[in-house]
Amino acid sequence: MKIAIINGPNLNLVGKREPGVYGSRSIGDYLQQLTATYPNVDFVLFQSNSEGAIIDELQRHGYGVDGIVLNAGGYTHTSVAIADAVRAIAAPVVEVHISNVHARESYRHTSLLSGACTGVIAGFGLDSYRLAVEALIHRDDA
Amino acid sequence: MKIAIINGPNLNLVGKREPGVYGSRSIGDYLQQLTATYPNVDFVLFQSNSEGAIIDELQRHGYGVDGIVLNAGGYTHTSVAIADAVRAIAAPVVEVHISNVHARESYRHTSLLSGACTGVIAGFGLDSYRLAVEALIHRDDA
Amino acid sequence: MKIAIINGPNLNLVGKREPGVYGSRSIGDYLQQLTATYPNVDFVLFQSNSEGAIIDELQRHGYGVDGIVLNAGGYTHTSVAIADAVRAIAAPVVEVHISNVHARESYRHTSLLSGACTGVIAGFGLDSYRLAVEALIHRDDA
Amino acid sequence: MKIAIINGPNLNLVGKREPGVYGSRSIGDYLQQLTATYPNVDFVLFQSNSEGAIIDELQRHGYGVDGIVLNAGGYTHTSVAIADAVRAIAAPVVEVHISNVHARESYRHTSLLSGACTGVIAGFGLDSYRLAVEALIHRDDA
Amino acid sequence: MKIAIINGPNLNLVGKREPGVYGSRSIGDYLQQLTATYPNVDFVLFQSNSEGAIIDELQRHGYGVDGIVLNAGGYTHTSVAIADAVRAIAAPVVEVHISNVHARESYRHTSLLSGACTGVIAGFGLDSYRLAVEALIHRDDA
Amino acid sequence: MKIAIINGPNLNLVGKREPGVYGSRSIGDYLQQLTATYPNVDFVLFQSNSEGAIIDELQRHGYGVDGIVLNAGGYTHTSVAIADAVRAIAAPVVEVHISNVHARESYRHTSLLSGACTGVIAGFGLDSYRLAVEALIHRDDA
Amino acid sequence: MKIAIINGPNLNLVGKREPGVYGSRSIGDYLQQLTATYPNVDFVLFQSNSEGAIIDELQRHGYGVDGIVLNAGGYTHTSVAIADAVRAIAAPVVEVHISNVHARESYRHTSLLSGACTGVIAGFGLDSYRLAVEALIHRDDA
Amino acid sequence: MKIAIINGPNLNLVGKREPGVYGSRSIGDYLQQLTATYPNVDFVLFQSNSEGAIIDELQRHGYGVDGIVLNAGGYTHTSVAIADAVRAIAAPVVEVHISNVHARESYRHTSLLSGACTGVIAGFGLDSYRLAVEALIHRDDA
Amino acid sequence: MKIAIINGPNLNLVGKREPGVYGSRSIGDYLQQLTATYPNVDFVLFQSNSEGAIIDELQRHGYGVDGIVLNAGGYTHTSVAIADAVRAIAAPVVEVHISNVHARESYRHTSLLSGACTGVIAGFGLDSYRLAVEALIHRDDA
Amino acid sequence: MKIAIINGPNLNLVGKREPGVYGSRSIGDYLQQLTATYPNVDFVLFQSNSEGAIIDELQRHGYGVDGIVLNAGGYTHTSVAIADAVRAIAAPVVEVHISNVHARESYRHTSLLSGACTGVIAGFGLDSYRLAVEALIHRDDA
Amino acid sequence: MKIAIINGPNLNLVGKREPGVYGSRSIGDYLQQLTATYPNVDFVLFQSNSEGAIIDELQRHGYGVDGIVLNAGGYTHTSVAIADAVRAIAAPVVEVHISNVHARESYRHTSLLSGACTGVIAGFGLDSYRLAVEALIHRDDA
Amino acid sequence: MKIAIINGPNLNLVGKREPGVYGSRSIGDYLQQLTATYPNVDFVLFQSNSEGAIIDELQRHGYGVDGIVLNAGGYTHTSVAIADAVRAIAAPVVEVHISNVHARESYRHTSLLSGACTGVIAGFGLDSYRLAVEALIHRDDA
Repeated sequence: MKIAIINGPNLNLVGKREPGVYGSRSIGDYLQQLTATYPNVDFVLFQSNSEGAIIDELQRHGYGVDGIVLNAGGYTHTSVAIADAVRAIAAPVVEVHISNVHARESYRHTSLLSGACTGVIAGFGLDSYRLAVEALIHRDDA
Repeated sequence: MKIAIINGPNLNLVGKREPGVYGSRSIGDYLQQLTATYPNVDFVLFQSNSEGAIIDELQRHGYGVDGIVLNAGGYTHTSVAIADAVRAIAAPVVEVHISNVHARESYRHTSLLSGACTGVIAGFGLDSYRLAVEALIHRDDA
Repeated sequence: MKIAIINGPNLNLVGKREPGVYGSRSIGDYLQQLTATYPNVDFVLFQSNSEGAIIDELQRHGYGVDGIVLNAGGYTHTSVAIADAVRAIAAPVVEVHISNVHARESYRHTSLLSGACTGVIAGFGLDSYRLAVEALIHRDDA
Repeated sequence: MKIAIINGPNLNLVGKREPGVYGSRSIGDYLQQLTATYPNVDFVLFQSNSEGAIIDELQRHGYGVDGIVLNAGGYTHTSVAIADAVRAIAAPVVEVHISNVHARESYRHTSLLSGACTGVIAGFGLDSYRLAVEALIHRDDA
Repeated sequence: MKIAIINGPNLNLVGKREPGVYGSRSIGDYLQQLTATYPNVDFVLFQSNSEGAIIDELQRHGYGVDGIVLNAGGYTHTSVAIADAVRAIAAPVVEVHISNVHARESYRHTSLLSGACTGVIAGFGLDSYRLAVEALIHRDDA
Repeated sequence: MKIAIINGPNLNLVGKREPGVYGSRSIGDYLQQLTATYPNVDFVLFQSNSEGAIIDELQRHGYGVDGIVLNAGGYTHTSVAIADAVRAIAAPVVEVHISNVHARESYRHTSLLSGACTGVIAGFGLDSYRLAVEALIHRDDA
Repeated sequence: MKIAIINGPNLNLVGKREPGVYGSRSIGDYLQQLTATYPNVDFVLFQSNSEGAIIDELQRHGYGVDGIVLNAGGYTHTSVAIADAVRAIAAPVVEVHISNVHARESYRHTSLLSGACTGVIAGFGLDSYRLAVEALIHRDDA
Repeated sequence: MKIAIINGPNLNLVGKREPGVYGSRSIGDYLQQLTATYPNVDFVLFQSNSEGAIIDELQRHGYGVDGIVLNAGGYTHTSVAIADAVRAIAAPVVEVHISNVHARESYRHTSLLSGACTGVIAGFGLDSYRLAVEALIHRDDA
Repeated sequence: MKIAIINGPNLNLVGKREPGVYGSRSIGDYLQQLTATYPNVDFVLFQSNSEGAIIDELQRHGYGVDGIVLNAGGYTHTSVAIADAVRAIAAPVVEVHISNVHARESYRHTSLLSGACTGVIAGFGLDSYRLAVEALIHRDDA
Repeated sequence: MKIAIINGPNLNLVGKREPGVYGSRSIGDYLQQLTATYPNVDFVLFQSNSEGAIIDELQRHGYGVDGIVLNAGGYTHTSVAIADAVRAIAAPVVEVHISNVHARESYRHTSLLSGACTGVIAGFGLDSYRLAVEALIHRDDA
Repeated sequence: MKIAIINGPNLNLVGKREPGVYGSRSIGDYLQQLTATYPNVDFVLFQSNSEGAIIDELQRHGYGVDGIVLNAGGYTHTSVAIADAVRAIAAPVVEVHISNVHARESYRHTSLLSGACTGVIAGFGLDSYRLAVEALIHRDDA
Repeated sequence: MKIAIINGPNLNLVGKREPGVYGSRSIGDYLQQLTATYPNVDFVLFQSNSEGAIIDELQRHGYGVDGIVLNAGGYTHTSVAIADAVRAIAAPVVEVHISNVHARESYRHTSLLSGACTGVIAGFGLDSYRLAVEALIHRDDA
């Protein structure tokens, strides 16, 4: 089984950036550790601040992986182009957020991506990523 | 550990109602089976079509359980009173949805509850309930 | 043939409440008389001020009657949960209103239920109920 | 007793146009047959694609008939002028729609006419016309 | 000097229609009398319930008269096409209303025509027409 | 003189729930004490989390008491049905709020009930109830 | 007969301010000349940049003059208080504008005053004032 | 104890102005009488039609009185500057209205001041002022 | 092959009307010349200022031509009835505009017709018509 | 003559992505073939998923080509920056879309680019590109 | 060189009012000191809580100074009349704010004045005034 | 002291692009000259048309410089991701604009960045950059 975890803008700063919102644990360390706990899954980790690079990555894996975990950061609320990419590819995409976006500024309450994704997981800190991986692994059972 | 699973209006019909949206598996059977897989957790299962009864139930368990899984059905989009109950109690509440509400009618895109809950899980069929239980169990690790 | 007539909040007061809007005839008397004029139809009459009880009643008859006449009163404009119940059941539901809701306050111009019902009849006083029964009886002819 | 049935734009195509929405029965045949079943009522049938011609017709019969059945088609959602005509005349006007406009595109959910009419009947196929005639005939009983 | 007075839908009923709003004086009589008091002005009087006929009339006189008095009735609030006609022609057009449209329903507060006209006069009963004629006659003095 | 005090959802938790917003005094104790200070007034105290039960209670006392003090909690912002009940009954109803709802979330700034009530008192903590009783007692003087 | 002409903010600069919009004729000279042409009318002329002073002036003359011509300038679009003053007094008030406000910025298309005034005259340059005086003088004829 | 009662535009006309809305009792007489019933309170009475003068008065007493009763009239709905003054000063401010503003025009449903004030009292006629004084006197008890 | 070119209100004035927007070439001459360059296509040319006449014409050719080029002028932005006609007929309809409507007033940015048409061509002056004919001729190749 | 054809995000997947919407023909093959049919035109073909790269390309050719055909994909609806680039350069830009964006999701009905482009062509499948090239070639004739 | 610094409502309280937002330095002291550092500039300092007085002051200096620094306080968001005054006068006006209005309540994000001013400076504490003076002094260099 | 000046899309064309809006001076020359006048400040100059590259640059300097001057061009109005980056980093960021964005198209009136920045300077031509540098240098004095 193969899963791509794609992170968008400013997520490379998690652990350092606004710890009251995002926690103080390094996302890099967390994801390394998370992937290690699923030895049977082949993970691809990717982060970029660029909308275009995220679309490139979605297209690169869109026909070759069993699922994609996508945290598009600020592009979640503004990118029709990423939503189009999610719709264009074959792999199921799970949208994740570290914080509960619905308890923050109102412009974070609207996601242009959710309607194109399989499902959404938000508000569980870094554990949101593990839950998304769980969702993809058990997808055929449901 | 004790977890309450509270279901709102029309969720008693899942398995029978609009199977294209909600699947054809009986939610009663599913939840029985789900709770059986967590022998160390003490589960309370509740369903009501009444907004007031859901608030009563949230208040009943709000100070006594370790977490609540709440699928408020149609009240998700219209109930300030349930959101107030979630804010009023001590237990963490995870909002779940069987379908991906963001890929349906636009009035289902707004949840009055999300901002009051700990987090949101939507779109994974009945597996959304298992992910919510997972989230509550691992809550202290995050 | 079996038809359920379900009335929502404050409709028990018709005849007594704001006669300029709702007329001064008792709705109980009217409905007794109406059902008497259709001896071949088996009628169920129900009224409740509770949203949840209306959903319970819709579910109770939703697979057993040939049609439902629903006047949801104030819930017409606010209840996603009742609309979901109408969509979840098998029987056709006709939405009725005594007054012409479109000639009243603007918040009465929007019905969350209409899109889920078979059709809508509004503005003919208590005769709206008879027209709805007529519509259900002739449904197969149309 | 005298009743005018006034149909607006594109209703001449019913039976031929989008049969999934409007059915495949010719509206001309239906209305001929409907009027025949009320031998004591004197009917006037009129159809036009022109907003002005509909207003002319409303004015022509507005003081001489006992009631008007109006299906203004697409003008329902855009014509202040037809609504003004309905308000200007003496005869009661019943708004009818063949399809359930509330279950279609959102711009069909708003009627500029409903507030000016006596009542509204929508969603019963061609039988909506019969129900409107029924409503006008029983108007004095209500 | 030549002035066209163009009246739109339902204005032929003034004097008969909703006298509380429009008064009980016949508009035909009033306009005959008004034009008689300006013997040096050559008047054209026109009324139609049809949007297209109003545009035809605006085009017919748009290059040949010294001014146009336009009461477009209900089309005031909905017709981009009449506004385009006003912009397309050379003659100055004064928008008039008998009632004070701003003290009525909110949809009468917006005029699509005002921005295309020279000026607006509303609320003075039938005297609004005389004021508009005055405005056109004194136009060069201002 | 007879006054009913009707409290809606989650108000039973006042004193325990979000003390920063609602204070830490038990509402039950407060109301007992308040009613004791008006020995000549016959009080009815009622609380429910159910919208339907609140309507039932309003109807029960609507023709028999001299005034009603209503704190509908979260239903204030969403219930057309309670507003209809207030309009349907004879007794004057005073809307009260413990907190200053206008200084909180924007969805709390809109009350569907205010237009149907006699008056509104908000922001004075539990003293809002005493002021409402005062208003009802002095109602005939004003 | 007595008429007050009340001008609001920045109207003292007409003739000097943005001549492309307001013309280059001094408003003071114009009004002096205008009042001279109606020897039988007793005029009061007033201008202030202050909203409160305009209300004071409306109240001062509101029961003693036969009509008021009001150009409230920028307050037209923002002042509920001036509209309340117009409603509070007995004299009829005509709203005037020099420019065609509907052909300018969109925030000038909404007048809070129009609904409270007798009528509106806009777009005829300084001649708008003369037309308003005409309207007041002929008011009893209409 | 010292309390300032500040009234805004057009409130000097209460008793004379629209008696159907505001009653026919002179506000001056009422307030004189009201203040006389609280011999231990030192009252300051002020009225102005000017937004600036109201702000001046709020600033003048904002650090010297124990409370302010403010009826800002039409400025309630439009004045950010008065709201800023209320926030800038130390004394608690109670917003009052004679009529039930929520049962009137929709633009009266929004108050820019409420969020800055301690609380709001509306709809009790002139008795609203007495209730506000009561609220300020009992403020420390609450 | 047969193509109908249907022009709406004020398009008869192109060449004469606002040449800065629509150019100074007569549309009649242009269309004569255009049709001459496609000798194998049988063209029908039609223009009317009336919404109803445009619908009549769409219905007349809707089952008999291979394509329709429609410039509905101002009705583009307001006519549900024309959009319904386009949906009701069998022939493909191409919406054209001479000017780039998106670079003009904001109310021209919304077309009620575009969703019902096959495609849209706007902004190329009179050449928009030729491009539309090209689109229809090559339709089967695409 | 020199023309640049610039394609935005996900357009590289046309032929493979959602064939029901975009057809099943490879866009690469189509464009190669299209450019071959215009031997006298020098074409530049470019595709990128990155908003910045599209702006770079527009700037690179903006002063050197005779026209640009731009299909900005999802950026059409969200990019002020691309619209600014179109306005900043000298070459005329034609906006094209393969599908009829107006018959799809409502967020595709708004283009931030159209107002900055020369014209718009949408809905003709890949033939939209040919029509745009035609429009640019005949631009001087119009 | 002559510069007027005009401050609006509540700015006289800066140093005393909400120090968390506006700082604790007296604005009077600051401005005295600021003007002293520009010995070659002739400064006029003015503050008023009255909208009308601010307009009077803008008119007084509008043709006689080289620039105006305007902090209109709460009127920034509500005053069309001040914006009109800024447009009516000849001197360039710089809008300043002490706090970053965009990081505060949403109603402070809209300025009616900005479009009429030369430029805007906000968020630098009292230093915003110095930057505005700098901008005016270097205006001819830019 | 170290300051980064970051310019977004199309700003490289200033001096060449729409000189009526942006002036005709080359921004490159201007910034070279500006930095030369502050010999004690170490400047970094950066421009990119890519949203992602701007975020990369903000992150690169966000913990190492004393301040950042950011003109995000068109991304100002659409980028949540850049605003998140500004919030994520430690250095103060000043938003600048060459033109007065508030006097241009309405979509330029909203900045997603302003709330995240320290302050805003707009409308002073290229001098806006100097004022921003001044603001950063004097930041500790304020």
